[in-house]
Amino acid sequence: MNAKNIVTAYKKQGARVETRARVKLKEKKDFSLWYTPGVGAAALHLTKHPEDARKMSIKKNSVAVISDGSAVLGLGNIGPYGALPIMEGKAHIFKEVAGIDAWPIVLDTQDPDEIVRIVKAIAPAFGGINLEDISAPRCFDIEQRLIKELNIPVMHDDQHGTAVVVLAGLINAAKVVKKDYKKLKVVINGAGAAGTAVARLLFAAGVKDIILLDRAGTIYAGRSDLNAYKTELTTFTNPRGVCGDLAEAMRGADVFIGLSGKGLLKAGHVASMAPRGIVFAMANPDPEILPDKAKKAGAAVVATGRSDYPNQINNALVFPGMFRGALDHGVKKITEKNKLRAARALATLIKNPTAEKVIPDLLDSRVVKAVARAVH
Amino acid sequence: MNAKNIVTAYKKQGARVETRARVKLKEKKDFSLWYTPGVGAAALHLTKHPEDARKMSIKKNSVAVISDGSAVLGLGNIGPYGALPIMEGKAHIFKEVAGIDAWPIVLDTQDPDEIVRIVKAIAPAFGGINLEDISAPRCFDIEQRLIKELNIPVMHDDQHGTAVVVLAGLINAAKVVKKDYKKLKVVINGAGAAGTAVARLLFAAGVKDIILLDRAGTIYAGRSDLNAYKTELTTFTNPRGVCGDLAEAMRGADVFIGLSGKGLLKAGHVASMAPRGIVFAMANPDPEILPDKAKKAGAAVVATGRSDYPNQINNALVFPGMFRGALDHGVKKITEKNKLRAARALATLIKNPTAEKVIPDLLDSRVVKAVARAVH
Repeated sequence: MNAKNIVTAYKKQGARVETRARVKLKEKKDFSLWYTPGVGAAALHLTKHPEDARKMSIKKNSVAVISDGSAVLGLGNIGPYGALPIMEGKAHIFKEVAGIDAWPIVLDTQDPDEIVRIVKAIAPAFGGINLEDISAPRCFDIEQRLIKELNIPVMHDDQHGTAVVVLAGLINAAKVVKKDYKKLKVVINGAGAAGTAVARLLFAAGVKDIILLDRAGTIYAGRSDLNAYKTELTTFTNPRGVCGDLAEAMRGADVFIGLSGKGLLKAGHVASMAPRGIVFAMANPDPEILPDKAKKAGAAVVATGRSDYPNQINNALVFPGMFRGALDHGVKKITEKNKLRAARALATLIKNPTAEKVIPDLLDSRVVKAVARAVH
Repeated sequence: MNAKNIVTAYKKQGARVETRARVKLKEKKDFSLWYTPGVGAAALHLTKHPEDARKMSIKKNSVAVISDGSAVLGLGNIGPYGALPIMEGKAHIFKEVAGIDAWPIVLDTQDPDEIVRIVKAIAPAFGGINLEDISAPRCFDIEQRLIKELNIPVMHDDQHGTAVVVLAGLINAAKVVKKDYKKLKVVINGAGAAGTAVARLLFAAGVKDIILLDRAGTIYAGRSDLNAYKTELTTFTNPRGVCGDLAEAMRGADVFIGLSGKGLLKAGHVASMAPRGIVFAMANPDPEILPDKAKKAGAAVVATGRSDYPNQINNALVFPGMFRGALDHGVKKITEKNKLRAARALATLIKNPTAEKVIPDLLDSRVVKAVARAVH
């Protein structure tokens, strides 16, 4: 489908998500109980016992999907209206996959302090906050402050959804190539929200040799142009102190993880990897290298973010289950332990990983339950 | 049902509103169109043509029901958690009565500037803003600023929903008592959001003799303790310059409109009215006077806000249709003309008004269509 046909389909569809009454208003007594005067008693109770909002209101099962549209994968800073169909799409998936009542909220501001204030202010009606497509490094600070100041789960999905699904795929890909995943030499191209979070979670999972690259090349201790967040990355990544470009980093690497842009990985890069290389080319919609080309250059396992190739490494495998688990188990903060468990649970769903199957399918109904169980 | 049983019912029910997918995600190609990569084309289109959000997203049919819980009728300043079940109830009615996808947003702030900033920031995903239970005089400024600065309809329902339904009821009640409604002497007890808006709309409809009272008595030109909003009221109300308490105002009045509190209207007040008096005792859940008592004291037509008496004057007769009309007809600002037309349309639904039937029933399916047609 070309862009024009897609836009036509969206116009024909209108909204993809709607509300639905869970109790009918058929008789006057229904209004008396669920509206006036009955709702007064519920209001008074919640004034005194706000914690019961989790039991007797929409807060029980709702997640706000919030973006300022400042960093939409593949599209950049497109603002709130551009972000809207993506947030609506996530709300759609939240419902279809995990039965969660998610509502898209797109913000007509990109000021971090204001975003924090707004999200805090609207939090009472929601059981969780899914942050989305907020640019790095702003996203790190915004997420951390909200996690600290709210008593409902807050997750920036570009970071942690991606990190969990990448770790899950990597655990299985390592089995396919018969290597210990903790001993893999991993190159992550892209040091934004996703790349940073992937590096952190892989390190937490025991992976010791991780090299991150941004547009200027490898990130290493002492590089003069690093911001505070990237400087912090040097404390646990690039142990061999590799300086240089992607070609330099890829030489002898076991794994390439692309969270960067179309066509950035060349056949020569793949050919220079260690034997039985793993390539996760996750740029959307156009990956860093096309699967056929990567295989021809010697890669043993190839994954992308797309639905039309095998091994779709997509955070839609993660966010519905993460929030399902948090809501069901009363989890107020999603921890690193939750994420590691979720990644392992996802990986375990594939009993016998092969080069064409390292990660479950988006339509695999076991996924949301497995991830949800991990969040407790 | 007592308060404890109501709370139990709400706990058993959980959320009263949920989301629902309007298109199914069954196959991989559904994800390709409605999520990645398809949504990228929709996002790019909306970045360039934000006005198309009304056609191809949730904005087409959605209303935010927003409150800070600062002035919940009958309960006072109960904050966001207390307000939550009421806003959820309105979202519930929006869907059931008018097919509108409304979402409750309760704010953990009562700072007017911050409320304006927040509502403006979250507006892109919504087709309309229903403000609710925000205290006067803050509500006037907040609503006016939002109407001015947003290009979607904004309505503070406590003001305008109430004003429209009161005017509709009054037009029919005047017919019952065979008086010209424009010549009625009207006393409005309560000069908050609702009382102020009722006075304005009645005046716009041609009613000339309106006396408003606040806790200190009648509002008249020159009263030394009036704020700017109340001072403005003196420019078009109280033409006879009545000073004093409710007893003073009620002497010879044709109409009492109560937007105040339980039991504030006494039998003696009603007995002092002009013949064939009209009493709208709308305090919730306990009216200013019970209908039996008002009738015994001589009132010809009595209405309340409650479901369990005849003549329920409730803004649920107004807000669903107002926003249905605004969304369907692309109305960006709800005008005084819209409100007057809506009130007349509501009144006209009762072909032969009687003392027991001056206003349509909440379950009357003609209501939403009649009001919606008036907003164009």
